[in-house]
Amino acid sequence: TRTHRIAVIAGDGIGQEVVPEGVRALEAAAEAYGFELRTTEFDYASADYYLKHGTMLPDGWFEQLSAYDAIFFGAVGWPEVVPDHVSLWGSLIQFRRHFDQYVNLRPVKLLEGMKSPLAGRSPGDVDFYVVRENTEGEYSSIGGKMFEGTDRETVIQETVMTRTGVDRVLTYAFELAQRRPRRHLTSATKSNGISITMPYWDERVEEMGRRYPEVDVDKFHIDILAANFVLHPDWFDVVVGSNLFGDILSDLGPACTGTIGIAPSANINPERRFPSLFEPVHGSAPDIAGRGIANPVGQIWSAALMLEHLGEREAAAGIQRAFEKVLAGSPREVLTPDLGGDGSTQSLGKAVADGI
Amino acid sequence: TRTHRIAVIAGDGIGQEVVPEGVRALEAAAEAYGFELRTTEFDYASADYYLKHGTMLPDGWFEQLSAYDAIFFGAVGWPEVVPDHVSLWGSLIQFRRHFDQYVNLRPVKLLEGMKSPLAGRSPGDVDFYVVRENTEGEYSSIGGKMFEGTDRETVIQETVMTRTGVDRVLTYAFELAQRRPRRHLTSATKSNGISITMPYWDERVEEMGRRYPEVDVDKFHIDILAANFVLHPDWFDVVVGSNLFGDILSDLGPACTGTIGIAPSANINPERRFPSLFEPVHGSAPDIAGRGIANPVGQIWSAALMLEHLGEREAAAGIQRAFEKVLAGSPREVLTPDLGGDGSTQSLGKAVADGI
Ligand SMILES: CC(C)[C@H](C(=O)O)[C@@H](O)C(=O)O
Ligand SMILES: CC(C)[C@H](C(=O)O)[C@@H](O)C(=O)O
Repeated sequence: TRTHRIAVIAGDGIGQEVVPEGVRALEAAAEAYGFELRTTEFDYASADYYLKHGTMLPDGWFEQLSAYDAIFFGAVGWPEVVPDHVSLWGSLIQFRRHFDQYVNLRPVKLLEGMKSPLAGRSPGDVDFYVVRENTEGEYSSIGGKMFEGTDRETVIQETVMTRTGVDRVLTYAFELAQRRPRRHLTSATKSNGISITMPYWDERVEEMGRRYPEVDVDKFHIDILAANFVLHPDWFDVVVGSNLFGDILSDLGPACTGTIGIAPSANINPERRFPSLFEPVHGSAPDIAGRGIANPVGQIWSAALMLEHLGEREAAAGIQRAFEKVLAGSPREVLTPDLGGDGSTQSLGKAVADGI
Repeated sequence: TRTHRIAVIAGDGIGQEVVPEGVRALEAAAEAYGFELRTTEFDYASADYYLKHGTMLPDGWFEQLSAYDAIFFGAVGWPEVVPDHVSLWGSLIQFRRHFDQYVNLRPVKLLEGMKSPLAGRSPGDVDFYVVRENTEGEYSSIGGKMFEGTDRETVIQETVMTRTGVDRVLTYAFELAQRRPRRHLTSATKSNGISITMPYWDERVEEMGRRYPEVDVDKFHIDILAANFVLHPDWFDVVVGSNLFGDILSDLGPACTGTIGIAPSANINPERRFPSLFEPVHGSAPDIAGRGIANPVGQIWSAALMLEHLGEREAAAGIQRAFEKVLAGSPREVLTPDLGGDGSTQSLGKAVADGI
């Protein structure tokens, strides 16, 4: 049988609660679809670990995690204890960068049973992907501060785009668009205001478009693009953006489909030289952590994306069907409070696992 | 009588059509509220001008426009003829920078008669301001390209924040929040990902918050903030953001209230050392230009903001009442197509002017 070795990192807050439900779904899928799963849990990349060790990750994390086929990740961040830029830069962003997970893929889909905040939109109306560049761009580590503490204080941070970095994520996005029925790719830009990096981004999109003549390409400046997510979410098929623009759009898209609490994300190294990482879009949610009421579907959906990446397409589709069905029609006792129910993380997780 | 000297720049596309309606409203207000208006039209800051002269602005534009109390601006941009980053950087962005219009103020308001794309929201539910930093930040002119045309090609653009630049826009935002009944200020950040400039922004917000203890301050990362514009637009009162974040939020906000075609904006130099500039949020809209169907309310609303800035508060309120009333209940013949009518730019403009 096929064996997949998975590093499991629950992290902070509700990460600790939803990850077990994600693992439950994975185990159900392994049994139903005939593959073997070897999971190992790690306690680092969490505020607890930081408090004990003064660092988010141990020496040797890179070699350790490199031995796995994928990383199944919960959430990191506990701002009362560790500032976000320390905890995030010290863990998640290191993973993305060192494992060269240069694609961040995030489905945006209006599902049955989910209440969209948009008027008059129904399931099926909205179904697209945000492809986000995940290693460079606005998330840079170059810059600094000068004339500190004076009126001349000046702070600079450099956005860095490389041809390699831009072209490879565009290639992924164009390939994805080409496989989809509508073959439509939208590029997020802001070349009218961000006058150096963004015109470059546009140039590369144009060049790449020539290599994929079957793909229908358009571009919008990020301001009006964000507006169009609200006004015309049905327009989109594959949307590609820089690290920052992709980040914004992949929260906004799920917000428009009412799925912000359940949206998944895949941090992918397409060449499989390094493990890819799968995590829900939501964070550690300190406000509801520890109460057993967090919705585990984002984690479970991420499990489906992970299995797809590992070549278990049927199992991935099985998980997807199972949670879509549970969301579309389950009694109150099963559903978590955010879905209008009075169930728990576990009741919802079990219902999905049973469905698989 | 009080006299206001206004430089009128219609610019490109529908700018040419809506600006006359804005001027019509201004003239009606001048008559009704007893002040004098001296307007002078300029043909620069347009694609036409660029085609004739090879530059967006003539020598001496700075001295020329400095002589006015305000600039009443339409729209600029005609991408088929001049790339956006050339036309915008060559005009609007120069105005903002040279006239030190460091505040970009944009009201977001759900008005009666406007159809919001959000389910279950009614007029009065949403009423806030976006205060955008307008001279520095991500819209920088420092950076460049290296290893051009090779696989090592690298493009860098620097985000620049200064203490002066950040503090003054924050001061404006805090002062505004303090004058409003809810006294609530929300800061847009991304300090978990943009790890140098954004933590600095947060620091300054915190410091400034100490000087305004009556103002209730919170902050959101831009990704979840954008999501919350859709999910909870009623949460916000004054939202302050960097040049880029403010840009995104001030398109997204109007999109959520169904007012993207009619939202106004004020580019303000609060010290009045230089003229401030007032323009609709919408652009030149090449797709509908020349047909006389553009909605002029964004331009008219901008006229109201301009009069308020010039100290004509009653006249400003008069214009506001007039267009709100026209939007709330006018026959089809009066309203433009975007509002579901079959009227024209002129019919709508006249109806508002009559109301004043
Ligand atoms: C046209 C563009 C440069 C401009 C901006 O980004 O500032 C516009 O979007 C705006 O909001 O006024
Ligand atoms: C927590 C934060 C650094 C992260 C990001 O901005 O990448 C998150 O918002 C995400 O989208 O995965």
